[in-house]
Amino acid sequence: MSSTPNDPRTPVTVLGLGAMGSALAGAFVRAGHPTTVWNRTPGKADPLVARGAVRADSVAEAVAASSLVIVCVVDYAAAREILDPAGPGLSGRVLVNLTSDTPERARSAAAWAAGHGIDYLDGSVMVPTPDIGEPGATLLYSGSRQAFETYEETLKVLGGQATYLGDDHAMAAVYDLALLGFFFPAMAGLVHGFALAGAEGVPATEFAPFTAAIAGILPPLAAGMARDLERGVFPGDQDNIVMEAAGIAHIIEASTDRGLNTEVLDAVKGLADRTIAAGHGKAGFVSIIEEIRKPSAKG
Amino acid sequence: MSSTPNDPRTPVTVLGLGAMGSALAGAFVRAGHPTTVWNRTPGKADPLVARGAVRADSVAEAVAASSLVIVCVVDYAAAREILDPAGPGLSGRVLVNLTSDTPERARSAAAWAAGHGIDYLDGSVMVPTPDIGEPGATLLYSGSRQAFETYEETLKVLGGQATYLGDDHAMAAVYDLALLGFFFPAMAGLVHGFALAGAEGVPATEFAPFTAAIAGILPPLAAGMARDLERGVFPGDQDNIVMEAAGIAHIIEASTDRGLNTEVLDAVKGLADRTIAAGHGKAGFVSIIEEIRKPSAKG
Repeated sequence: MSSTPNDPRTPVTVLGLGAMGSALAGAFVRAGHPTTVWNRTPGKADPLVARGAVRADSVAEAVAASSLVIVCVVDYAAAREILDPAGPGLSGRVLVNLTSDTPERARSAAAWAAGHGIDYLDGSVMVPTPDIGEPGATLLYSGSRQAFETYEETLKVLGGQATYLGDDHAMAAVYDLALLGFFFPAMAGLVHGFALAGAEGVPATEFAPFTAAIAGILPPLAAGMARDLERGVFPGDQDNIVMEAAGIAHIIEASTDRGLNTEVLDAVKGLADRTIAAGHGKAGFVSIIEEIRKPSAKG
Repeated sequence: MSSTPNDPRTPVTVLGLGAMGSALAGAFVRAGHPTTVWNRTPGKADPLVARGAVRADSVAEAVAASSLVIVCVVDYAAAREILDPAGPGLSGRVLVNLTSDTPERARSAAAWAAGHGIDYLDGSVMVPTPDIGEPGATLLYSGSRQAFETYEETLKVLGGQATYLGDDHAMAAVYDLALLGFFFPAMAGLVHGFALAGAEGVPATEFAPFTAAIAGILPPLAAGMARDLERGVFPGDQDNIVMEAAGIAHIIEASTDRGLNTEVLDAVKGLADRTIAAGHGKAGFVSIIEEIRKPSAKG
């Protein structure tokens, strides 16, 4: 893919200065870009203005300052509230929406942008705020290929692993939610680990380094799951769901004995138990996907 | 810590030849150790015997063959059933129990071993079977320091990251369960990610590589959680639980729209929601530990 080298003279505008928006704007300021910022509460701009950013008094003024406009707010409803009045002013510009929301709302935003002649990229930030601007930071983009190719090097200021997922605007949100669907259970699992180790007097800072050994085996396990999923067979030659359900039962037992909440683990065990009940006890863990593909039994 | 260099002439015995036991015995065979193996179903030993291991006809014969005896079966009940009759024969030997179970049963096994004059190490394997024997593979040990120091280099044949956690025999099980308490929700999250991305037509093998970006940020996030836990404050300056609950709600919404089961995510969101309801909405994600420290409301 061809791309234009980053020109630090390229002006950029960042709308929304929460923790993530401020980190994004800060990365552009640090890289020397003329950076215009706007936030509903103008005081949020103060630290960035002190570092050289320009505060816009209105969204229209902020949009007029740059051909590349980034928006990062709490959800798409908030983004639309900010952008709707600015629609005409955005015509002919590139809008990159780094707000996190559902694929449906990404497609709806793309339709809105198309109606206003806006060159629209939907994006997802896959790293926490302190990692913004790092060469290893992953940000995902989908939608206008031309917009991505024009600004790829500028977008790499936000994170070196800027990845284009194709022209379906929803793809960044799909990957975002699917990856967060991995992230949040993992985070809850981490906290459970601290709680269980802590209940036996293990200091959190002594326990934490060992989590890297677990985190390190997840990507190769995911690669193995992917191969099994594409072949549609879950051999369970290295593991099997009966053994894994026994392991989960031990964690639940030890946790319950220590007065800890086990609802997340109970839910994982429920998926495993139903997989076994369906006759797949000798299959690998990935076979729980058959149960995940059935809607929850809830009201 | 001083340790004796590994002598590949050191005989080792492995009791239990499930997937993990076979991998352990295979690593010893590969390293050139005289390796005696026993399994209730003797046929499981065939591949190892073909590679040079010696099949014992009884547990007593297997135990008599080596000063270092490893046992790895499905749980401690199974281990006790195998070891109880061999107790006198194990006297004066080192027994390393790599069976996974609860801390309570590790302490009970240690008491049993002490009663028979057995030098006892309890251990936990933190990697899947294909990683056994790798320099980066982590195995945790606790209990007899003398046993660990005597055989540390031999145990490194099973995994280069052989870590001694102290003389409380339960510690390997505590770390094991706490780390598995992270692992299994993370694994369920991975499978959910594949299901959600797959529902939008993303091939599993295209999605899988992106999971590494998420896995990679977990250990530094765990380190940050640990610092917060030790200080007892959850600042939420880089994230906050209200924003995270909104993100989890998006995943649940998108998953439900695609007919996917959301019970694991519902449980994570329940912890987040109760944390917010308790007045900690601006705290970081680790603050859910207060809710994890309350028993589940179940029958």
